[in-house]
Amino acid sequence: MFYLVGLGLGDAKDITVKGLEIVKKCDKVLLEAYTSILTVGKDALEEFYGRSLIVADRELCESNIDEVLQEANEKDIALLVVGDPLGATTHTDMLLRAQQFGVKIQIVHNASIMNAVSCCGLQLYNFGETVSIPYWTETWKPDSFFDKIVQNYSRNLHTLCLLDIKVKEPTEESLTKKVRQYMDPKFMTVKEAACQLFEIIKNKPDTGITKDSLCVGLSRVGAPEQSIALRSLDAMRRCELGAPLHSLVVPAPQLHPLELDYLAQFR
Amino acid sequence: MFYLVGLGLGDAKDITVKGLEIVKKCDKVLLEAYTSILTVGKDALEEFYGRSLIVADRELCESNIDEVLQEANEKDIALLVVGDPLGATTHTDMLLRAQQFGVKIQIVHNASIMNAVSCCGLQLYNFGETVSIPYWTETWKPDSFFDKIVQNYSRNLHTLCLLDIKVKEPTEESLTKKVRQYMDPKFMTVKEAACQLFEIIKNKPDTGITKDSLCVGLSRVGAPEQSIALRSLDAMRRCELGAPLHSLVVPAPQLHPLELDYLAQFR
Repeated sequence: MFYLVGLGLGDAKDITVKGLEIVKKCDKVLLEAYTSILTVGKDALEEFYGRSLIVADRELCESNIDEVLQEANEKDIALLVVGDPLGATTHTDMLLRAQQFGVKIQIVHNASIMNAVSCCGLQLYNFGETVSIPYWTETWKPDSFFDKIVQNYSRNLHTLCLLDIKVKEPTEESLTKKVRQYMDPKFMTVKEAACQLFEIIKNKPDTGITKDSLCVGLSRVGAPEQSIALRSLDAMRRCELGAPLHSLVVPAPQLHPLELDYLAQFR
Repeated sequence: MFYLVGLGLGDAKDITVKGLEIVKKCDKVLLEAYTSILTVGKDALEEFYGRSLIVADRELCESNIDEVLQEANEKDIALLVVGDPLGATTHTDMLLRAQQFGVKIQIVHNASIMNAVSCCGLQLYNFGETVSIPYWTETWKPDSFFDKIVQNYSRNLHTLCLLDIKVKEPTEESLTKKVRQYMDPKFMTVKEAACQLFEIIKNKPDTGITKDSLCVGLSRVGAPEQSIALRSLDAMRRCELGAPLHSLVVPAPQLHPLELDYLAQFR
């Protein structure tokens, strides 16, 4: 059996009872470590589960997963994923492969930022399409995600912006070499996201979204040290929300009174 | 302290370890019983937790919650909610009131249909605004939700349709009487939702959504006996998906190859 187990968002105890039982009984447990992170690391998880974990990086999950899946024909193997296990395309692909190998699968759902974002008081059914904001480089500054924010905004819908994370990314120099070298992991902050958005609106003046538009910055959602800030886009460029992960919401222009009341505490 | 604890979607073991610890230590634990249901009832939860639960109906949650919240100044009280605790407006309102009373609050997130719907293979970031489909009566047949489905569809986004549930609804006759009488609980099925959609498209022929458009019916998402069916809207009117809760998805017109591959197993 191949289990995909969601870990939720905060710390080790955000796993479900069902998920924990699976972790304890499996022959092998992998920890997916590149699409998201918890506020605690592998060591804290191993201590809480009372067993060792194998870190599954991008290479393993995207290119070398078949071996693991075939092993799951004979053994019980779990892959632990931060948030809900089906948030990323990689895992849907994995399930399809498992089926091709005749491997039975079970999914254990958990909270993800896609629903826990409601902790800021914005109602989930008022959110439109979710977007991802990628890190810009000197030569690559994509802004197509902004059109989706504008489309949501014009329909009076909020936009959840997932912020880029770079974990085990090969350095540019090492791409042409035999031995890969990796950059330090980095996680986009609400500050960085706001700066990129600020650059974009300079060239797109007629969208309704300006430097004075309100934004909601969120960090470590679901953890005790969760932090939420309501700021203008302009001010969000200087808003420190501490350790990762961060997310940013561009709210709809017209908010429900209850949304306004709840948001007010984060100003 | 006032705890809002999400129970997830399937059975008693879908609570998180953190949530279970809270349930065990609280002085009083209420079970919210009108916005959603698990596949198991109160008795199964009580047995698993090893303690008794107080059922919190709509009247308690919407009108008489202040007493409970004020009690939480002195005691530890938890309200258990199916899915994620912030899925419904009621609970945001409750948190605001708690703050007014100076009560400390903690939220324990969990999976909700808003993220677990990805179990059908449709990618979460391709969903637009979520809609709710209400039960029609002889004289009241609202269809404004359909315009939102069409707007999503025209932007090539999927729509999650949450289906109406009626729990502890007063009968029409008893509304004018002193003693309220209540209807049997009922939960809209994908069949019923498809029938209502079918009626709507008869009068709105140019939306792109026709009787041959594909729909995804889901029932008991997150439970072992979860069921998913891919059918034309026409055929969905005869599709039996068993016990509640049901949800319906109207997929975008153009699907990603991975979405198509994954959906194919449910045809």
